[in-house]
Parts: sequence; structure tokens; C-alpha cells
Amino acid sequence: MTVQGVPGIPTAAVSRLVTYLRILEELERAEVPTTSSGALAERAQVSAFQVRKDLAYFGRFGTRGMGYTVSVLKRELTRVLGLNRSWSVVIVGMGRLGQAIAHYPGASEYQFGYVGLFDVKAELIGTPVDVPAQREGVSGSGLAASAQPRQLNIQHIRDLTAFAQQQAAQGRAIDMGFLAVPPEHAQAAAQSMVEAGVKGILNFAPTLIQPAQDSAGHERGLQEISDEWRDVMVENVDFLVGMKRLAFYMLNPQLRDQDPEEKA
Amino acid sequence: MTVQGVPGIPTAAVSRLVTYLRILEELERAEVPTTSSGALAERAQVSAFQVRKDLAYFGRFGTRGMGYTVSVLKRELTRVLGLNRSWSVVIVGMGRLGQAIAHYPGASEYQFGYVGLFDVKAELIGTPVDVPAQREGVSGSGLAASAQPRQLNIQHIRDLTAFAQQQAAQGRAIDMGFLAVPPEHAQAAAQSMVEAGVKGILNFAPTLIQPAQDSAGHERGLQEISDEWRDVMVENVDFLVGMKRLAFYMLNPQLRDQDPEEKA
Repeated sequence: MTVQGVPGIPTAAVSRLVTYLRILEELERAEVPTTSSGALAERAQVSAFQVRKDLAYFGRFGTRGMGYTVSVLKRELTRVLGLNRSWSVVIVGMGRLGQAIAHYPGASEYQFGYVGLFDVKAELIGTPVDVPAQREGVSGSGLAASAQPRQLNIQHIRDLTAFAQQQAAQGRAIDMGFLAVPPEHAQAAAQSMVEAGVKGILNFAPTLIQPAQDSAGHERGLQEISDEWRDVMVENVDFLVGMKRLAFYMLNPQLRDQDPEEKA
Repeated sequence: MTVQGVPGIPTAAVSRLVTYLRILEELERAEVPTTSSGALAERAQVSAFQVRKDLAYFGRFGTRGMGYTVSVLKRELTRVLGLNRSWSVVIVGMGRLGQAIAHYPGASEYQFGYVGLFDVKAELIGTPVDVPAQREGVSGSGLAASAQPRQLNIQHIRDLTAFAQQQAAQGRAIDMGFLAVPPEHAQAAAQSMVEAGVKGILNFAPTLIQPAQDSAGHERGLQEISDEWRDVMVENVDFLVGMKRLAFYMLNPQLRDQDPEEKA
């Protein structure tokens, strides 16, 4: 059931896996013990074939004709997605967007724990912000009843490297940085994160982060990617992409049901 | 160059089209007159083959061996994505997330114009919120210099239907609703939007909107989808999906470069 060495998993399948996991959580909350690819497909609005194909990338989870045990499939998908471990996260950019991210429901449930908040605005530095408590231990169902919100004070971005070193020295290295600065500052802020040793960036700014650019934004050839960027993962949560995709499908509704992946 | 009747365009290709458009805008801003599939690919971090394949779904845009004229390809992709017209948008849920959406940079540049803001919290109703001015006319480059921010007062969600009717009577029907309420209220809020005649929903809540559920959340069979939901498009911008995808690829970096679409 390892994904190591499995060739050719489409990025879209990973996103759908996240959707299936959400549905399984809802089923578990509703105390539904078993489910089927057909039932998952209906809720995820894809075909049952697509569900079976996506799950098959990661292992054999069900019994033919018998469907899936909700708790077992949920546990397996949680493991596949790396959500049975905890992730230490900093947020860079604590304006409206950073605040919305810090309070977005469900992140702590998935072991994403905020350990530091950063900005450059003098009036924000030192401001306390409530963040949800990170759940401890292995993944279970629902929020831990004992989870208390904590407060973090916003720090200046120039202190990020020192903070990261201090965290690492305590065995709690920063895993991810969520980037919520205005687009014109995104590249420089990402560079600061990478210099601080952050290996995963979730970019909320509507701009592309370029590993082949330096912090001044000058394009370099790909061969000039600096070593510090070499194993950095960047994912994007770009509101405009969603807006534009919606516009496209409203104009072309007939294309919505013609995803060739569905038919493969 | 019509997309009507073109079978089998992957959803992921539509998302990549949005990325190519962003790159073209950046090239235009940098006064770069022409580009190539290789240059687009490098910036979008996909293969040149993928770029050519994605563009081919929508027409023939370049001259073999000559590359693309930036301004022409930008104009064509803008048209394909439906961004050469304006879209009237309401935001439902004006907490931290709704505020962040209202101020997200770039939406007005793409002709998404906020016409109404809604919530249920008594202390928010009547509160004025600055929203960017919507650009008028055909798409050009950059923000219109004359664009002045406007103010909208937050209204109660129960007034959404009346507001929608009033807008429609003035020939300015609401096109889209951006949903930014807590997940436990998302289904009911979406139902209110659909009852008000909104045909496109961009859901920011970390939950699935089910066209086959009524506002009380009871699941219906698919055959019981009410008429009002039948031609409604739902797209999701779910922060947790991005977080989980990042976690997955940090644990499985070797899968990142193995997307089978790239190899087709």
C-alpha cells in the first residue's frame, strides 16, 4: 500500500483523494459503517470508475462487491496524505487574508499547527492573535475536546530565520509556510521563508512563486536555481483561479461532464 | 476557435489555462512581445508538450516554429475563459474570510464586480465595506487608473432574493455568489443563493455543497435534485485541500514530476 515508486499519479487524483477523505469523515460522523465507490462518487460528483481508479493508485482498500469500511478507508487515506503526523506551520502576512487563514476551520483537525505569525507592518508586530490548538497524537474523529486556543504574537519577518533556528534546536523544525502577503511582495517573502529553511510553501497570493528568481525578482535560468530552493514544494491556493474556472464552466457547461479522466 | 462541442477537456487544463494567462499578463507588463511554449512551460512548471496540448484544446494560436504573440494569445485566452465580460458577484458571509475575499487583489481586474454583501450577524448588518471598483469595458492591461473603490453596506441574507430580483429588474442579474460562511452553514447559505437565482457558486467553506441535499441537509436521491439546482455550477476554493496536497507532495516528492498528463 506504499505510494513509493508508484508511477504516474495525476495531481488531480491527489485533490480528489482529499475530497474522498472529507466524505469519509462526514460518513463517520453520521455513523455510517460502510460505503461503496458508487456512494463516494455521487457525493464527490465524479464517476464510480474514477473513484476506484483513484484509490487503486494507492493500494487495495475494499473487497470486491463488498465496498469499503468507512473507518478503515479513512485511516488509510489519512496516512497516504500524510495527515497522521503533525505539521508545524508559520503564516507570513497577517493582514485580512492571514487572519482568515489562521481562523480557517479544520486546519488544526488535520494536524496543521501554527507556531509563528509574521508580517512587516510596524503596527502589527507584537499583536496577539488567537490560533487554534493543534491536535496531538494520531488522527481520530472530530476535534479533541480538550483543544484550547492559544495566542501567538505577530513577529517581524526579519526574525523568521532566528525563530526557525530556535524551533529546530528544540526539535520542532518549521515544516510549512503559508504565504498571505500582497502579490508584489510574494516572491521576496517566499525567499525569506526558504532562507529560513522552510521546505513547503502554500502560496495564497495571486502570483506565481518562481524558484528560478531571486528575491529581487530577476529571472534566472533554470540552471541557476539556488540550492536552497532545490527541494522546496510550492502549492497554490489562488482565489482568482477558482473565480476564472467558475466563469469558464458557466460559459461552457457542456464541458463540465466531459473530463477525459472520467472516461479513461 | 470555439470550445463548443470540443470533447474531453480535462478540468486541470482549464486551471493551467488560468496560469498561462497570468504569465502572459506578466510578460505583457514586462513588454515582452512574443513567447514560446517552452518559455510558458518553464514559468508554469509544466512541460512544453503540456502547454501545446492544453492550448490545442481551444484552437490554433501560434505559428509553428514562430511561437506566440503575447498580446494575441492573452486576448484569446481571456475570451476563452469568459473574462472579456463582466460578472456581478455577491459575497455571502462577511466575517474574516468574506472580508479577505472582498479585498483579494486582482478580482476587479478580471471583471468580477461585487454588487452585494450578505451575512446573518446583527452586528454586521448595515456595516459599510470598501470594495474595489469593477473595471468597465473590454480587457486591457493593468488596472484602470480611474477605478475608485466603492462602499457597500452588508445586508441580511434574508434580503438576498429581493435584492436579486431588484438587480435583475435593472438588467444586472447576479451571476455568481462567493460563499464564505462557516462550513456548518454552507449548505443552507448555498440554498438561499440558488433560490435567489444565482447560477454559479464559488464555495470557500471546507465542506462539499450537495445539489442533492435540501437546506436542512437531508440527503435526497440524485433523481430528486430540485429544478432550481439543475444548472447551478459549484467550484471550490478549499484551503484545506491545498494544505493536504502540500503535505502529500512533501512526503512523496518523487510523485510530483510523474503526472501522467505530462507524458501523454
